[in-house]
Amino acid sequence: MRSPILDYLDGIIAGTDHVDSGALADYIPELAAADPDRVAVALCTVNGTVYASGDTDDRFSIQSMSKPFAYALAIEDRGLEDVLERVGVEPSGEAFNELSLDPETGKPRNPMINAGAIATHALVKRDDAAAVDRILALFSDLAQRPVGIDEALAASELATGDRNLGLAYLLHASDQLGHDPAAAVEGYIRQCSASVTVRDLALMAATLANGGVQPNSGLRLFSRRNTRHVLSVMASCGMYDAAGDWLTSVGIPAKSGVAGGIIGVLPGQVGVAVFSPRLDAHGNSARGVVMMEKLSEDLGLHLMEAGRPARSSLRETRTVAVEGVPATVYVLQGDMVLSSIEALTHELIGNPPPTDLVVFDMSRVDEVLPVARRTSAAMAAKLIDAGHRIILVDPEETVPGFQDSQGRAVERWSVDRFEQGLTSRGSV
Amino acid sequence: MRSPILDYLDGIIAGTDHVDSGALADYIPELAAADPDRVAVALCTVNGTVYASGDTDDRFSIQSMSKPFAYALAIEDRGLEDVLERVGVEPSGEAFNELSLDPETGKPRNPMINAGAIATHALVKRDDAAAVDRILALFSDLAQRPVGIDEALAASELATGDRNLGLAYLLHASDQLGHDPAAAVEGYIRQCSASVTVRDLALMAATLANGGVQPNSGLRLFSRRNTRHVLSVMASCGMYDAAGDWLTSVGIPAKSGVAGGIIGVLPGQVGVAVFSPRLDAHGNSARGVVMMEKLSEDLGLHLMEAGRPARSSLRETRTVAVEGVPATVYVLQGDMVLSSIEALTHELIGNPPPTDLVVFDMSRVDEVLPVARRTSAAMAAKLIDAGHRIILVDPEETVPGFQDSQGRAVERWSVDRFEQGLTSRGSV
Amino acid sequence: MRSPILDYLDGIIAGTDHVDSGALADYIPELAAADPDRVAVALCTVNGTVYASGDTDDRFSIQSMSKPFAYALAIEDRGLEDVLERVGVEPSGEAFNELSLDPETGKPRNPMINAGAIATHALVKRDDAAAVDRILALFSDLAQRPVGIDEALAASELATGDRNLGLAYLLHASDQLGHDPAAAVEGYIRQCSASVTVRDLALMAATLANGGVQPNSGLRLFSRRNTRHVLSVMASCGMYDAAGDWLTSVGIPAKSGVAGGIIGVLPGQVGVAVFSPRLDAHGNSARGVVMMEKLSEDLGLHLMEAGRPARSSLRETRTVAVEGVPATVYVLQGDMVLSSIEALTHELIGNPPPTDLVVFDMSRVDEVLPVARRTSAAMAAKLIDAGHRIILVDPEETVPGFQDSQGRAVERWSVDRFEQGLTSRGSV
Amino acid sequence: MRSPILDYLDGIIAGTDHVDSGALADYIPELAAADPDRVAVALCTVNGTVYASGDTDDRFSIQSMSKPFAYALAIEDRGLEDVLERVGVEPSGEAFNELSLDPETGKPRNPMINAGAIATHALVKRDDAAAVDRILALFSDLAQRPVGIDEALAASELATGDRNLGLAYLLHASDQLGHDPAAAVEGYIRQCSASVTVRDLALMAATLANGGVQPNSGLRLFSRRNTRHVLSVMASCGMYDAAGDWLTSVGIPAKSGVAGGIIGVLPGQVGVAVFSPRLDAHGNSARGVVMMEKLSEDLGLHLMEAGRPARSSLRETRTVAVEGVPATVYVLQGDMVLSSIEALTHELIGNPPPTDLVVFDMSRVDEVLPVARRTSAAMAAKLIDAGHRIILVDPEETVPGFQDSQGRAVERWSVDRFEQGLTSRGSV
Repeated sequence: MRSPILDYLDGIIAGTDHVDSGALADYIPELAAADPDRVAVALCTVNGTVYASGDTDDRFSIQSMSKPFAYALAIEDRGLEDVLERVGVEPSGEAFNELSLDPETGKPRNPMINAGAIATHALVKRDDAAAVDRILALFSDLAQRPVGIDEALAASELATGDRNLGLAYLLHASDQLGHDPAAAVEGYIRQCSASVTVRDLALMAATLANGGVQPNSGLRLFSRRNTRHVLSVMASCGMYDAAGDWLTSVGIPAKSGVAGGIIGVLPGQVGVAVFSPRLDAHGNSARGVVMMEKLSEDLGLHLMEAGRPARSSLRETRTVAVEGVPATVYVLQGDMVLSSIEALTHELIGNPPPTDLVVFDMSRVDEVLPVARRTSAAMAAKLIDAGHRIILVDPEETVPGFQDSQGRAVERWSVDRFEQGLTSRGSV
Repeated sequence: MRSPILDYLDGIIAGTDHVDSGALADYIPELAAADPDRVAVALCTVNGTVYASGDTDDRFSIQSMSKPFAYALAIEDRGLEDVLERVGVEPSGEAFNELSLDPETGKPRNPMINAGAIATHALVKRDDAAAVDRILALFSDLAQRPVGIDEALAASELATGDRNLGLAYLLHASDQLGHDPAAAVEGYIRQCSASVTVRDLALMAATLANGGVQPNSGLRLFSRRNTRHVLSVMASCGMYDAAGDWLTSVGIPAKSGVAGGIIGVLPGQVGVAVFSPRLDAHGNSARGVVMMEKLSEDLGLHLMEAGRPARSSLRETRTVAVEGVPATVYVLQGDMVLSSIEALTHELIGNPPPTDLVVFDMSRVDEVLPVARRTSAAMAAKLIDAGHRIILVDPEETVPGFQDSQGRAVERWSVDRFEQGLTSRGSV
Repeated sequence: MRSPILDYLDGIIAGTDHVDSGALADYIPELAAADPDRVAVALCTVNGTVYASGDTDDRFSIQSMSKPFAYALAIEDRGLEDVLERVGVEPSGEAFNELSLDPETGKPRNPMINAGAIATHALVKRDDAAAVDRILALFSDLAQRPVGIDEALAASELATGDRNLGLAYLLHASDQLGHDPAAAVEGYIRQCSASVTVRDLALMAATLANGGVQPNSGLRLFSRRNTRHVLSVMASCGMYDAAGDWLTSVGIPAKSGVAGGIIGVLPGQVGVAVFSPRLDAHGNSARGVVMMEKLSEDLGLHLMEAGRPARSSLRETRTVAVEGVPATVYVLQGDMVLSSIEALTHELIGNPPPTDLVVFDMSRVDEVLPVARRTSAAMAAKLIDAGHRIILVDPEETVPGFQDSQGRAVERWSVDRFEQGLTSRGSV
Repeated sequence: MRSPILDYLDGIIAGTDHVDSGALADYIPELAAADPDRVAVALCTVNGTVYASGDTDDRFSIQSMSKPFAYALAIEDRGLEDVLERVGVEPSGEAFNELSLDPETGKPRNPMINAGAIATHALVKRDDAAAVDRILALFSDLAQRPVGIDEALAASELATGDRNLGLAYLLHASDQLGHDPAAAVEGYIRQCSASVTVRDLALMAATLANGGVQPNSGLRLFSRRNTRHVLSVMASCGMYDAAGDWLTSVGIPAKSGVAGGIIGVLPGQVGVAVFSPRLDAHGNSARGVVMMEKLSEDLGLHLMEAGRPARSSLRETRTVAVEGVPATVYVLQGDMVLSSIEALTHELIGNPPPTDLVVFDMSRVDEVLPVARRTSAAMAAKLIDAGHRIILVDPEETVPGFQDSQGRAVERWSVDRFEQGLTSRGSV
């Protein structure tokens, strides 16, 4: 049985068939010779399931979509502070090939424009291997297959790389490039010539959606914090001179490449990738933009879409006998985020537990954010102070242990013990 | 018992006590005379619960924090297209009092800078009442109390409003202000002089977090779509010339005012507001920025924080007898968003139901996004095509009815009928 | 007999008859209703002779051509330093209605753009009369007839003066306008509505060419130094965003007005004025620019035209008897500028006078620049030191008296005494 | 006897001894190691006389002062139109090392900034020799001695030439450099490393002052028209971001170099050069600027200084007998420019010659501008028409021959014939 999600993606392609405006990038023959009618879309969940439709195995060059990943690698290598000293994070308001160097410092405005991407490439460490080889290894880890370079394309781009060379020499002149300019440009162009499919890109984007962990291999490639940083920069600077327009209409961090690809990330949910070689006036894939708009709209991907108003994670409250003692049992479920822990404390304070014994059944809880961990510990302390005895049924230890100055602590019970305690003597 | 969330907010204030840099806005005596040591913080959930600490009932002028709300009202009044023709959505890269008019059209770059806010004010309809009166009524609906104007402040600002007058006349000269310039500035200044507390602001921000519905009154003040648009513009343009920095470090849509307030919104979760009158070089409350950074960090508010990787909403799968017929029951729970419906279809296709009868128990489902509604209908059709009989236990009709060309349809059962069916003859 | 110069000007008009491109200024009905085919040219020498051809008595509004004169008046009133603190002198590289305010200080870039001209207007003193009345009095002194205001035009421009009001309020907001903004704009618009002919304008321009002295009345209206300053600003900022192009191709300080006039000044020689209402894309009279180009080319007006390589002002050297004493007589003529005094000293040092007595006949000398005055005094001192006796025949005392520490001095003879001395005993 | 002009230049040096602000250019060791106290000044008339004081024979690198000369050579090589297609003539309003490329075309704003100077260098033809060799040959022709390159300096600058390389690659990327970027930069840097003295520079500047003819060799190196163009560009773009300030205060076309030299040109009169290595914040020699200001002030060099109000070139009018016939004799002298020919025609028309025979004695006339040639011919025609007989005593044929449709023409007499005619029968 074919997944309805695949059917849906087929529909995305069929439904954008009429979008044939735009023109192939023509600055090098390799790009100009692409088949303009190729089209593909892929989606990868944070669980690593990939759905793809169209020319899903056609390869094309990653181009500027390489930028966020090389940027993430540079931050992993050097630390965020060091990288921020070389490359800013502000939108440039300018087209992709503008210089966008800070007039005071010569620092590139952000890592998504070419100047910033060259500076970023030069920041990737190259102890044992060339930076570009480390970047390719990263791409391979992200896509879970060996990603190689389109050497003919790389050679062509190098031969016409005057603008990038110009940028690199200017960066070097301002001490913003700790690297030989010509070597940095060569490496950067090779990075951009990596040959990928929409499947690869969806997996790469899903890794960003998944907080830096490749969903299938489970390998942490970027720290959660750095991933968040990279996504923020994609959100404000990824779509060149129409950042505000993109954020209002599509509403997800994204990056496009001049070969016709676009990737997008909905944090915590999915990575998406589209491909169609004809470019609009901004240098983004014309049909790709329409596909992304439809995906965002249909799939509810907009970051600002309050489509998931937080519900209480307090599943139910029961008054039962536990091992014969009257107890109030709070059954929690789902993720414990700010809104769920707030709802819980609100309930506990508004309707204090009528029994001395209080059980928190956390066996159905998925993830507990730090705010919830801290707040639940504080709440437990308050209840103990008020004379309650607290039992935590928390098999995955999502909540920290707790002991107050008088040695009073929460008790931790296993699920089994709790269930036996419940049934041993029936409910009160 | 005091809520640990209140304790937490107390801690935010105590923990930023050392931040005494910055200076009072001094362009009018009323602002310069403010007590610089006042400080407050408030948080309001999408359920309407407000937590506040510090000088929570001190009033101060709303200033530029009025901009997103007036912008939302203008969009409600005129429609988004019309408003976009008058005011752009791109970050300006400039300080708050810069002109930031598009050199071609004279159109303000965005509604968060003064020129754009004046143009926005002039777009609010004024059929029966002055625009400013409609805006005050909106503020009152948002804060659930009558919000008034600090008339002394308004008078002072009017007397020193040359820059705003200059902007208004320039807008009028470019036909970007369908309004008398002096009247528009007077109305705009009165809008900015609305007198509010951090409680009010938290409620106002929570309305944006809640998709446009005031959490306590349940009144829909802005459409979901317009709310999303306003939040996007706050994210890219709300913090003036440091949009990229703010988005990477704090990561929530926000807006500050020159009297020392800052509001922030985490869509679907909370609105927050802080207040401290001393301003940094960007014109934002110095201590307020630090409080916002801490709130974002501690409470996990960063938009790009993939802290909630989507979990399956498939609670359990059971094979039972339903009214004596072997059935596979899928118990769903929580929100049905892209990732949850994807997980469900993934399961159904990978492990097709072993029985003809298939029951989807959706009685524990909270919200169903359009993507999930469409996909579940498509999935049901596929199952019917494959010979299955489908029962939906969906008391809130979260999923649409369905009938195929041969008259085959999903059956809808009540919870009662289903539970009786289950128990009538026991499990298989 | 008709002057060949008038014939020449007739030819300028006939020779540009084909230039019918451009369009009338259309922002107010009064300008849009002008007869587009009117055309006139006038030229006024520093002696005050006016030549004019075409619609020489048609009146039109002076518009921006008023700016250099109001600027000169402001400098006379306030002193150059004070004016420079309010208005810069750098080209703006922007079109005439751009803001061109210094981003740091809010100071207008130069007095030839509107913002700078409004600020300049506000700097004109208004002790007894409104600034605009003092400016009209100046125009009347310049044109030697009472210049009035086209009141209907002024009223129309005021009604559509939003941009100027906007600029004025912005200037006021930056403390760059010591004046009520609305009053400054009204005065400025009235200044621009002064009604003039090409004859008037040629006389006005000729006053600048003549170092600030109205050639016919002999009235000094601007100091020589201030005149030079105003001309420099016209040269670099007068023709808006094509300053470099104008300076290379036409090569004279100039200013155009939106009603179709252009004035130009060749320092020391002539003022010219042309008029034709159709404007090019820069807002300059299309046919007027062509006429100015032809005038510059034909009349040798280009500032950088080294058409007058300096010749020796040493007319002849004679050895004669003066009152019976052998003397070397140096007959000087023309202007004594750097190059002429250099030539004289070069001759005196290379070929020292063979007689003790040396006579400088300066009766044919026109003007003596300070450099020549100082250098000739220094040269005389050297000759005295070398044992010569010096007689100056200098009826207009162009050269200062001189006496050295030993009481030795140049002798001053009248022309009569010198001629009698020459003839009394014949040449040696 | 020492020339008072030399004394004056000594005074310029002594009088600026206190100006010791500024710092040596430090981007390469060769410049940083210069003796900061060296100082020199030179002046060269259009007759080729050089006056110099201070360290007049110290050599330093020409740097950016090479730009106007290479620009003039490129225009001679390619024609002005071609060069204007590659390099603009508008002031950039930016510092010397800013990019200043037109955002639309990538064309450098003007030839005085580095990008424009590199593009200019690449435009110099290199058929038989490298461009830089042709430029050195030009410098040698200008300075009348073999000018060589400071090879150590050139090597150092090349090693730190990243910014120039960056600019060159960007130009090449925009097709604005028909040349290999690295070769263009090497040539340009060698051009800048030419080693000169203030004497050399004064001669070079004097060639521009003299309309393109080297004053001593008499060699025409640039056409009069191209020279005028180059001087215009120096006037508006020569002093970087303070063009307006320089034009108002110093008032002559000028160019500075980072080694501490500044040249200035007063068309038709002199070239000047100063040298002092400490640079101000604009990158101009700090003491050099003060010296230039004093030279301009003292020597009356300001372009806008109407110090030479044109006098009548009509020396005298006599009524005499010429070969026995009563004749009116007009004795002309000096240069015949617009103002002088205007004065002559004004006199002839206001006071028509009382005799049939009219003699123009032009034997004392120096130069006749085209305007004067055309106008005098037209005037002669009018007099013939009015029945007069015209004799031209014009030994240098400054005025063209003339014959009307009826065969009537001006007669040309030699000076001898005229003098004999005068004396033959005495005055009437």
